[in-house]
Amino acid sequence: MEIAERVLAGNIRAVARLMTELECNRPYALKILHELYPHTGKAHIVGVTGAPGVGKSTLIDSVTRSLRRRGMTVGILAIDPTSPFTGGALLGDRVRMEKHNTDPGVFIRSLATRGGTGGLSRAALRMAHVLDAMGKDMVIIETVGIGQAEIDITKMTDTSVLILVPGMGDTIQLMKAGILEAADIFVINKSSRDGAETLRAELENMPTSGRQRPVILTESVLNQGTEEVVEQVFRHKQDLISSGELRERRRKRAVYELMSDVEGAVRNAIEAGMKGEVERLAEDIIEKKTDPSTAAAEILENVFNHIRRAP
Amino acid sequence: MEIAERVLAGNIRAVARLMTELECNRPYALKILHELYPHTGKAHIVGVTGAPGVGKSTLIDSVTRSLRRRGMTVGILAIDPTSPFTGGALLGDRVRMEKHNTDPGVFIRSLATRGGTGGLSRAALRMAHVLDAMGKDMVIIETVGIGQAEIDITKMTDTSVLILVPGMGDTIQLMKAGILEAADIFVINKSSRDGAETLRAELENMPTSGRQRPVILTESVLNQGTEEVVEQVFRHKQDLISSGELRERRRKRAVYELMSDVEGAVRNAIEAGMKGEVERLAEDIIEKKTDPSTAAAEILENVFNHIRRAP
Repeated sequence: MEIAERVLAGNIRAVARLMTELECNRPYALKILHELYPHTGKAHIVGVTGAPGVGKSTLIDSVTRSLRRRGMTVGILAIDPTSPFTGGALLGDRVRMEKHNTDPGVFIRSLATRGGTGGLSRAALRMAHVLDAMGKDMVIIETVGIGQAEIDITKMTDTSVLILVPGMGDTIQLMKAGILEAADIFVINKSSRDGAETLRAELENMPTSGRQRPVILTESVLNQGTEEVVEQVFRHKQDLISSGELRERRRKRAVYELMSDVEGAVRNAIEAGMKGEVERLAEDIIEKKTDPSTAAAEILENVFNHIRRAP
Repeated sequence: MEIAERVLAGNIRAVARLMTELECNRPYALKILHELYPHTGKAHIVGVTGAPGVGKSTLIDSVTRSLRRRGMTVGILAIDPTSPFTGGALLGDRVRMEKHNTDPGVFIRSLATRGGTGGLSRAALRMAHVLDAMGKDMVIIETVGIGQAEIDITKMTDTSVLILVPGMGDTIQLMKAGILEAADIFVINKSSRDGAETLRAELENMPTSGRQRPVILTESVLNQGTEEVVEQVFRHKQDLISSGELRERRRKRAVYELMSDVEGAVRNAIEAGMKGEVERLAEDIIEKKTDPSTAAAEILENVFNHIRRAP
């Protein structure tokens, strides 16, 4: 059976292998993604973001269990380098996560973040397509949500959940960073701490261009508030569908992904056939014989010839 | 007098205007940068990074005062959205920073982070070239250092200073995120807090491929430890020069900047002449008539024609 068919049938080994090939950006894997693409668009893509230590993975864990009880299947993509999914955190967290590995209704994948920024969000979206095509009802993308690339990814999801904890920083700073405006649902975790009600009031009184965004108080280690998070995600999904905004968000995502792919193709062409020329021009730059943007124009001329010659 | 000449003469208004034009990516501004480029390479570029609230700008402020007392001129680029340089933080911080505005030996510029990731590091490097060309002895780039783009920028500096505070998180997590390996000098700020000595021991015992990296304890609000930070930056600079690593770092930076400029040129060509086609293809993608990477190949073919037609 072909790989695309095996992925569509939910074969976990085929999915895992395809994801690795996609991370390595192999043309062969892109061809399979091309075959899978018509089968995507059914999964709801949820971003969960917040600073390290706010409890993102604990919440994702309890939300996943809730979704499983409702009979839904879940894909999880972790692109937070401090996430227990990627192996960065406390042993207790990791053990809890690994329980899902024996459940065929849950597929967990961590993404390496070392490949540079553009590649990161592009890889995350490609993985989300694969999870979508294999039939996952919901895809959850976990990011640390502080760097620009991470905010970009948040903007690319259908529903974006931002987790805050009381006393961890100024909401005005988050607003300036564009973190608050990208959120559809606010979660205040560790809400038994001082300052939870003040934070809730701040978030509720924040000016918004669209609908009023829900603020949910949780204690995710005690599994408190999980059901309300799940309900609000469902409600947001319904709102997106009935208002027509889901289509608009996915159109923007398509533009973003298209542009990432264009840049990726150029970068690949350079790495495949022009490394020597890049090195030579870098020497010229530090010798002040040329400058980066002039050298870039020279590279581009050759990229065109390279890509045109490619089959 | 021409703009390039005015920048070389240190005219502040000419510098400020050129930076704005560079942020808007105008071809005219790139032409001026081309003229300035042979005059760069003298400034030492220092990255200062750390999570929000560790005291980056307080340290930069006191380091700047120390450098000024030594008769050196300083350029500061803030790309942390929570920095007081960009207007995000407490009033007290901002007032302290604004004091430098009356000192012609200090030039402060904040960078907007909304333009997307690739654009951010490219813009930071271009601004650094301008500050270098205008004659600043040291250029300090402040980043929040958590997202991938921010780590990338840190790797592009001559000397990278990482600020930590006791009890703010697991060093193992920072190591996994690639944040620790990018640092040349560690600063433990707020070092009167519990845990400073433990953190120092952890950092000093960390395996390193290169030289032993200094760990400096500071209390930057009390101006304690500033001189040691300045001394260690100078020592690192000397080490880089005598070992030949400075040249190697700058060669890598040239490759990075060259590649960013290639991607930027492609993106500009698309935005200038192909917006309609991108929108049409995005519609096709959500209708499942095509997929992003296939559509990207179509766009690229037209990008080539567009750039080739350009003068």
